[in-house]
Amino acid sequence: MCKLQFSFELKTQDEKARLGKIITPRGSIDTPAFMPVGTLGTVKGVFSEDIVETGSQIILGNTYHLMIRPGTDVLDLFGGLHNFMNWQKPILTDSGGFQIMSLAKLNKIDINIGAVFSSHIDGKKFVLSPEKSIQIQKSINSDILMVLDECPSLTKDKDKLISAIQISTSWAKRCKIEFGNNTKKGLFGIVQGGLYKNLRLDSLEKLVSIGFDGYAMGGLAVGENQEEMFNILNNTVDYMPKNKPRYLMGVGTPSDILGAVKSGIDMFDCVMPTRSGRTGLAFTWEGKINLRNAKFQKDKTPLDSNTTIRNLNLYSKSYLNHLIKTNEILASMLISLHNINFYQQFMLKIRKEIKKGTFNNFYNKYIDMF
Amino acid sequence: MCKLQFSFELKTQDEKARLGKIITPRGSIDTPAFMPVGTLGTVKGVFSEDIVETGSQIILGNTYHLMIRPGTDVLDLFGGLHNFMNWQKPILTDSGGFQIMSLAKLNKIDINIGAVFSSHIDGKKFVLSPEKSIQIQKSINSDILMVLDECPSLTKDKDKLISAIQISTSWAKRCKIEFGNNTKKGLFGIVQGGLYKNLRLDSLEKLVSIGFDGYAMGGLAVGENQEEMFNILNNTVDYMPKNKPRYLMGVGTPSDILGAVKSGIDMFDCVMPTRSGRTGLAFTWEGKINLRNAKFQKDKTPLDSNTTIRNLNLYSKSYLNHLIKTNEILASMLISLHNINFYQQFMLKIRKEIKKGTFNNFYNKYIDMF
Repeated sequence: MCKLQFSFELKTQDEKARLGKIITPRGSIDTPAFMPVGTLGTVKGVFSEDIVETGSQIILGNTYHLMIRPGTDVLDLFGGLHNFMNWQKPILTDSGGFQIMSLAKLNKIDINIGAVFSSHIDGKKFVLSPEKSIQIQKSINSDILMVLDECPSLTKDKDKLISAIQISTSWAKRCKIEFGNNTKKGLFGIVQGGLYKNLRLDSLEKLVSIGFDGYAMGGLAVGENQEEMFNILNNTVDYMPKNKPRYLMGVGTPSDILGAVKSGIDMFDCVMPTRSGRTGLAFTWEGKINLRNAKFQKDKTPLDSNTTIRNLNLYSKSYLNHLIKTNEILASMLISLHNINFYQQFMLKIRKEIKKGTFNNFYNKYIDMF
Repeated sequence: MCKLQFSFELKTQDEKARLGKIITPRGSIDTPAFMPVGTLGTVKGVFSEDIVETGSQIILGNTYHLMIRPGTDVLDLFGGLHNFMNWQKPILTDSGGFQIMSLAKLNKIDINIGAVFSSHIDGKKFVLSPEKSIQIQKSINSDILMVLDECPSLTKDKDKLISAIQISTSWAKRCKIEFGNNTKKGLFGIVQGGLYKNLRLDSLEKLVSIGFDGYAMGGLAVGENQEEMFNILNNTVDYMPKNKPRYLMGVGTPSDILGAVKSGIDMFDCVMPTRSGRTGLAFTWEGKINLRNAKFQKDKTPLDSNTTIRNLNLYSKSYLNHLIKTNEILASMLISLHNINFYQQFMLKIRKEIKKGTFNNFYNKYIDMF
């Protein structure tokens, strides 16, 4: 039976770690889930069909990048990003907020107007209001939309964080109104508050009172160390609504994911598998390895002899070492695909361990490996 | 029945245009054939499996590049290039001569020693003798080996061309001795002589008296115009042995291929489909198009709606335009694959037309299109 409404089902818990399923009309997503990042309408260096083969059930698109290129006029022509990029499974889009703070030339944040900034590509001026962010995400036709938030850089300045919560809460309300009544898609709120528990809970409470289909932890993975991130997650995630998916934005290493799952997070996204792939770094069950290293020059073993996807098991570390040293595109193609596949195997294993009630063993085995 | 010997069968002719088949223990090659170029052990930006899907039956590897990286010690470890790069069909290797003249810092050509040069990568000094070239090609374990020749740049200086023929003939003899008796592989001689018919025929006669498994036209596609190339081919190819494959090295555009097939050439190689692919140029049945052009920004049609390989028919020119403008790797991947596929479709069509005896109609239709 095809459920046509966006929904979330919590199946079981192993201590705080959760096994669940997000249902969307475009397909369901087993959680804990990892979303490969397709910044500009492509998961860099990987064919869409191969992303599917890795077991990825959802990818992330970046509203900021897509609004600049190709722009909503092109996306509208295709009825959204799915047809444009040939990816028919669910897509989650961020709101554009994070890139405006980190990448664009930000002119000002005005609680009433939105974010005023210049494109990092051609300097063109844009105003991104909460309404505009949702409108663009509707042009992208994403299945999970994020509210526009103000995402401050890492700071211990409580006033800045309180101000960010105030602005983000106000924008979240406006985003929900602009989103309207759409049971086929999900709109997620974003919790701010830096590394302060009381601020996080304050932000969360305000968002819950507005009411969203899911809740994200924003403003993490912005320079704090892993212990600080795990601490704030351990102290706050448990307060997030149990019947809604919980998303930790922009995270992270396999180890980061393990710790966050342990505190009850359900969803992740990160450029790490593809960005690492392009520089010759591969994730394996024996840890992270740098294929550029001369010790792999005559290593005939594959990265993972069990992986049959695209015959990846037929490519040796020696060959990958050669491709990286000669700057061949195929190096990025093979290692990025391997890394995404590894991440999805890792998530699959996490889900199995939670189901069996043995997640802590898995956590202990791998938490220090990556 | 599996024929384990290298051989060539001429099936039919349509005027001078020839339909044939090269048999090798690793697979047969229908001619006229186009060989994608895998310079450094990878056809740039394309998975081996996808090269097979395009109908490619043989690829080319570059001895000069492979001797420098990864080097014969690594290739020997894998028993050759096939296992190293995961390509089990036939491989043809050039001798290294052309790159030494065009790419490396050449120190000297000595008829007795060989070519003395410095690597374009790290300046390391190499001596490539005829024997060494064959030994390296044996490390690569290629199925068709080329003799080491001196390939002068485009010149009308007959003395230079005569000297090149003298050196190349002497080296060809030594290559044949080094090649030895190997019925599973083929060794091809290379005809020099620039744009002079009498020099070409002199070079050819000398090579035929040594005796090779196939004969290549070298020293073309080095800057002469198409008419000059067609002229010398029309005047000389017919003199090449009828029962051996004829190979035009480094050529070319679809139009170049048409003209050369018309004069009786059987084999081609060129970087054009992949190099063009990386810069956004696509070959189609309507001609060559530059996908970077703004007119494709909202063009929802694919490059070829009949191509189902890797769902290429699901990617619009609009999407490809976007990928090129944003420097996404996927642009190179999709367009390079499309171009190789187009070239192989083009060759398939050429073979069908020769078989039907209607090659000239096809020639007239497409000779001015590319």
